[in-house]
Amino acid sequence: MTIVVDTSKSPHARLTPVSLEAVRLQDKFWLPRLEKLRNITIPSQYELLESTGRLFNFRRVAGKARGDFKGLVFNDSDVYKWVEAASFLLAGGFDKSLYDLVGKVVDEIALAQDEDGYVNTFFSLERKNQRWTNLRDMHELYCAGHLIQAAIALFRATGNSRLLEVATRFADHIVKTFGPGGRLGVPGHPEVEMALIELYRETGNKSYLDVAKIFIDNRGKGIIGGSQYHIDHKPFRELSEIVGHAVRALYLNCGAADLYMETGDLELWNALNRLWDNMVNRKMYVTGGLGSRHDGEAFGFDYELPNVQAYSETCAAIASFMWNWRMFLASGEAKYVDIMELTLYNAILAGISLNGKEYFYVNPLADRGKHRRQAWFECACCPPNIARLLAGLPGYFYAVSKNEVWINFYCESTAEIELKNRSIKIIQRTGYPWEGDVTITLHTDGEQDFIVKLRIPGWSNGASVSLNGAELETDIRPGTYLEINRTWKTGDTIKISLPMPVRKLVCNPNVYENLGRIALMRGPIVYCFEAVDNPGFDVWDLIIPGESILETEYRPDLLDGVVIIKGTGYVMDSKWSEESLYNELESKGEKPRKVDFTAIPYYAWCNRKPGPMTVWARTVPFGT
Amino acid sequence: MTIVVDTSKSPHARLTPVSLEAVRLQDKFWLPRLEKLRNITIPSQYELLESTGRLFNFRRVAGKARGDFKGLVFNDSDVYKWVEAASFLLAGGFDKSLYDLVGKVVDEIALAQDEDGYVNTFFSLERKNQRWTNLRDMHELYCAGHLIQAAIALFRATGNSRLLEVATRFADHIVKTFGPGGRLGVPGHPEVEMALIELYRETGNKSYLDVAKIFIDNRGKGIIGGSQYHIDHKPFRELSEIVGHAVRALYLNCGAADLYMETGDLELWNALNRLWDNMVNRKMYVTGGLGSRHDGEAFGFDYELPNVQAYSETCAAIASFMWNWRMFLASGEAKYVDIMELTLYNAILAGISLNGKEYFYVNPLADRGKHRRQAWFECACCPPNIARLLAGLPGYFYAVSKNEVWINFYCESTAEIELKNRSIKIIQRTGYPWEGDVTITLHTDGEQDFIVKLRIPGWSNGASVSLNGAELETDIRPGTYLEINRTWKTGDTIKISLPMPVRKLVCNPNVYENLGRIALMRGPIVYCFEAVDNPGFDVWDLIIPGESILETEYRPDLLDGVVIIKGTGYVMDSKWSEESLYNELESKGEKPRKVDFTAIPYYAWCNRKPGPMTVWARTVPFGT
Repeated sequence: MTIVVDTSKSPHARLTPVSLEAVRLQDKFWLPRLEKLRNITIPSQYELLESTGRLFNFRRVAGKARGDFKGLVFNDSDVYKWVEAASFLLAGGFDKSLYDLVGKVVDEIALAQDEDGYVNTFFSLERKNQRWTNLRDMHELYCAGHLIQAAIALFRATGNSRLLEVATRFADHIVKTFGPGGRLGVPGHPEVEMALIELYRETGNKSYLDVAKIFIDNRGKGIIGGSQYHIDHKPFRELSEIVGHAVRALYLNCGAADLYMETGDLELWNALNRLWDNMVNRKMYVTGGLGSRHDGEAFGFDYELPNVQAYSETCAAIASFMWNWRMFLASGEAKYVDIMELTLYNAILAGISLNGKEYFYVNPLADRGKHRRQAWFECACCPPNIARLLAGLPGYFYAVSKNEVWINFYCESTAEIELKNRSIKIIQRTGYPWEGDVTITLHTDGEQDFIVKLRIPGWSNGASVSLNGAELETDIRPGTYLEINRTWKTGDTIKISLPMPVRKLVCNPNVYENLGRIALMRGPIVYCFEAVDNPGFDVWDLIIPGESILETEYRPDLLDGVVIIKGTGYVMDSKWSEESLYNELESKGEKPRKVDFTAIPYYAWCNRKPGPMTVWARTVPFGT
Repeated sequence: MTIVVDTSKSPHARLTPVSLEAVRLQDKFWLPRLEKLRNITIPSQYELLESTGRLFNFRRVAGKARGDFKGLVFNDSDVYKWVEAASFLLAGGFDKSLYDLVGKVVDEIALAQDEDGYVNTFFSLERKNQRWTNLRDMHELYCAGHLIQAAIALFRATGNSRLLEVATRFADHIVKTFGPGGRLGVPGHPEVEMALIELYRETGNKSYLDVAKIFIDNRGKGIIGGSQYHIDHKPFRELSEIVGHAVRALYLNCGAADLYMETGDLELWNALNRLWDNMVNRKMYVTGGLGSRHDGEAFGFDYELPNVQAYSETCAAIASFMWNWRMFLASGEAKYVDIMELTLYNAILAGISLNGKEYFYVNPLADRGKHRRQAWFECACCPPNIARLLAGLPGYFYAVSKNEVWINFYCESTAEIELKNRSIKIIQRTGYPWEGDVTITLHTDGEQDFIVKLRIPGWSNGASVSLNGAELETDIRPGTYLEINRTWKTGDTIKISLPMPVRKLVCNPNVYENLGRIALMRGPIVYCFEAVDNPGFDVWDLIIPGESILETEYRPDLLDGVVIIKGTGYVMDSKWSEESLYNELESKGEKPRKVDFTAIPYYAWCNRKPGPMTVWARTVPFGT
C-alpha cells in the first residue's frame, strides 16, 4: 500500500484505503499495462540501474567495487523507487524471480549503510564529512524519503523486513540529527516528510511524525535561503499561491496533508486547500499536467500555461495524484478524485510509451514532432516514479470508513474488502474508460448494513444509477459520491451509466494562448491531433467549428486499443518560407478547405511516426 | 557620437556615421520627445540618482559621505549612462545648467577613482581586496564600459576631458590586469568590449583594442563557468544560435561587430550574421523586442515568443538597435536599418511613458492591465539606457563613405554633412512616421559629384522616387538603399513616396500562440488594441476577419498625436467564472456581435486607464 491511513489511528483522516492486494484487475486497459510493467518496464529499468552505475554506487560504498561515484547526487532514489514499484507488483501477484531480484538489490542497499544508520552513496566514503552540510541542494533527505517508502512497500507486500530495518535505523539517525533539540533542518527537496509519517504509521514510533512536523514547520524561516523555488519563501501555513519547483511543492503538500491527517491542524488544511484552489483553477493543464516552466521546473504565474513550452513534468503529475489522494482520504471529497482520474489518464499515462520502456520527462501539449520519449535520462526521476505509481494503482480504487465502501475508480475487476470484520466482494464489469456503463455486483457474507459510495465523475452529465434493476430517483450530481445506504446481500447489483459524449472544452479566457481554441475530451480522456492520423494537412492549422459534429469509434488495432474521435474541420494551409518570422496576410481568393480529422487520446501520442501534435485546435464561433 | 567608425581608420567599416551635432530636428514626433528628455527625463533621473544613493556611493568612496554602499553592485552604471545621455543632449544643443550639472557628477566620479585607476564604488574601500575576484557576477567590467562610453560622449560633445582622463586611467588599469600577459578575464556581462574599442578609436591606443579582443576570444573556454546564460558555452566564432541573457548577448555582439570593423576577422562576421539570422527569423517579436523569457532575462528556443509572458526587456531592444547599427556601418546593408527602425518605433519607444518619466523594463505584447510603467526600478538599467538612446538618436540618421551620403531615417530635419571636405546641407520635409512622403532638398557648395543612398524601408511596397520632379524609372526594391549618382547642385530635390496602407501581418506558423492571429502595422509602427479605446468588449476577444477594411485617422489630440486604425470586427463575449479553468463549450444559439474597434500605436499603450491590451488579434480565414 502506498499509504495506510487507518481512520482508527489517524484521527483526522476520513477514509482508509483498500490495499492493492485486495483488488484483481481483469480489464483490457490497466491489466495489460501492469503486465507490461512487470515483464518489460521493471526488468528494463533494473538493467538501466545496473548499466548507469546506480547499483555500482551501493557496491562501491560496501567495498565490493572500486571507482568514483557515478551520476547525479540523488541517483540512489531511482533504485529506491524501483524497489517500491517492484514491491507493489509483488503485492499484486507474488513472483519468485522478481522477489529474488528485489532481495539482491536490498542486499546492496543494506551493505551500504553506515554504522550510524546513514545511507547515501554520494556522501559515504570520501565525502563522509560533508554529510548534511547542504540540505538545500544535495537531496540527502529526499533520498532518505524514497528509501523509507521503498522499505515500507516491501515489508507490506512480502513481510520482508530487511529494508525496513535499514530505513528505521536511518530514520532514527535523522531524528537524532534534526529532531527536537537537534539541528535546524529543511529538506531542499521535500519527500522525506510523507515518508516519515508513513513510517510512523507503520511502526507507531511518534518521533518520525515529530521530525516530519519540524521539517514542515521550519520552512519559510530562511534556513535554506528563502527562495520560492524551494517553497521556503513563507511559512507553509501562510501559503496561498502554488509556486516554485512543481515536484517539490507537490511532495511537500503530500507531507503536509499527511501531517494534517495525524494532527488535525486546520491551518495546514486551509493552506492546502488554498494551494489546491490556486493550482486547479489557475495553473493546471487540461491534461492535469503541472509546472508550466522549463526554468526551475516550476509553476508559472496564474494562467501561464504555454502549450509548446509546457514543462508538465511526469513526476509533477504523479506528485499531484499522490497529493490529491491524501486530500481525498482526509476529506472524502470527490473533487480530489476527479483530479486524480484526469491526471492519471492523461498527464501521467503520457509519461510512458506503449511499449513500456520509453519515457517523457516533459509533456508538451503541442509539438512539431521533435519531442520524443527516451529510454532513460541522466536525471531519471520520472521512469521509476511512473513505474511505482502504476504498480500501486489498484490501491487507489477503493476506500473504506467505519461503515462505508467508497468506489473511486471504475475498472473491470474484483475486490475483496473487509468492513467491520466481515468480507465484501465487489465485482465490476465495465469497458471503462472507453465505455461509461459499469455493473457492480456485491457478494456479501450474509446480509450486511453499510453504505456504498459511488463516485460520479465531475465530467459526467446525465449519469443514471440503478439498483437491482430499479432506477434510483435520487439527484445525481457530477463531482460527488452517490450514497446508497441499505442492507446488502449477495447478488445485489448496481448499474451506473455515465454518458460519454465527446465534449468540446474551452479554456478560461485569461489563458491568452488558448483563446479561440477547443480541446476534445471523452470520459476522463483528453484527446490530441497527431500528424500520423491526419495526412494531408498540418494539425496545427486545423480549425474545428463550434457546431461540428464529432463521431467516435473503438479501434482495437490502434495504439493497443483506443476510441478515436473523427470529424470534419477545415484548414487554410500555411504557405511559409522557414526563414521569415512575419509576413503580410495575403488574399488571393483562397478558400479554406474541408478536411476530415482524427483525434487520439493524448496519452498515446508519440508512439508512431514523429510529426506535429496539438491538444488545442482552433475554432471559430458558432454561426460564422 | 555614439560610435565613430572612421572608414579611413577602421579598415573594415563600410560607413562613417554623421555626428548628431550635424542634425537639427524640426519635426513633431522626435523633437518634442527630445525636448521632454531634456526638460523632464534627464532632471527627474538626476533626482533619482541622488535619492536612491547612486551618487552617494561615489561621495562615500571619496570620503565625503558616510554609510554603507547603497543598492545593487552595478548601480554606478546608471550614473554613467545618465552622463552619456546628458552629453548627447549637450551635443545636440549646449545648455549651461545641464553642462554644470554633468560637471558636478563628473567631479563625484573622478574623486572616487583609486590611485591605480580603478573605479567602482562597490569594490572600493572595504571591498578593495575583492576586486576582480568574480568577473562572472559582479559587473565591474560592465560598469567600466559604461564609464568609458560616458567619458567619450562627454568629450566629443563638449571637449571636456575630465572624465575621459578618468576613463583612460581605468582602461589602462584594465589593460594591465587583463591584457597580454595578464590574468585570464571574461566579462560576465559584456559591455566593456565595445567601450574599449571606441576608446581605441578615440585615443588611437591599440592596447584597448587588444584587450577587447582578448575578452571576446576568452569566451567559451569555461573561465567563467561555461553557461549559455553568460554566452560562455562556446567560443564566439562558433556561435550560430542566439541564446542566453539577451542584453549580454547583444552587447557582446556589439563588441564583436566593432572588433570586426577593426580587424576584418571574417569568422567574427560570419558568426554575427548567423546570430542575426537566427534572431530575426526565429526569436524576435513583431515589435523588434527580444528575449522571450523572464527567467534569465533570456532568449528562448526558436519560435518561443509568448505574448503575455514576453520579457522583451527595453534594454535588449536598445542593445539590438546598437548592434544593428554596427552591422550596418560594417556592411551598408539596409536589412540592419530595417530592424533598427522597427525596434526604435516599437520595442524601444514603448519603454518610456509619454510624460517622459515612467518606464517599462518588461514589454509584454498582451496584458490584462496589470503591467504598468514605473518611475524607477531597483535594477534601473532601462531608464538611463533609453535616455541615452533617444538623446543620441539624430546621430543615426545619416552615414557617409568616401563618395556617398546615406539617408537612413526620415524625419523633418536639417543636416550639415561634410563630404570630401565640402559641405552638403540636407533638408527633409515630411510628416514621417505618420506620412510616407518625404521631400529632400540639397544645398551644396557649388556643384558636387557624389552618390545619394536613400533607404527604401523593407515594409514599403510600391514606393516611388522622383528627382527634380521627374519620376525615377529605376527598380525600387523595399529593404535596399536606392542609389542616385549624379552631379548635385543647390535646390536639387528628391521626393520619396512610401505608401502607408495598414498591413495585416501574420506570424510564422511555428509560433503556436500566434496561429490564427493578425497584427496591424502601418509604416514602421506596430499597433495594439487597448481597452480604453474599445469600451463594450474585451480586446482579447476581438476577431478581425482577414478581408476587413481598415481605416486610419490622424488624431492630434490623442497620445501626443497618433494615427489610429479603425475597423469593424466581432466578438463572442466570454462569460466565465473567474474560478474555473476549463468549461464545456456551450451553444445557446448566440451569434457573434459586430463591434467597432480602434487600434493605437503599441509604443503608446499604457499611458491611460489600465485595461487589457493585445498586439495580436484573432482572425478567421478569408471567406468564412
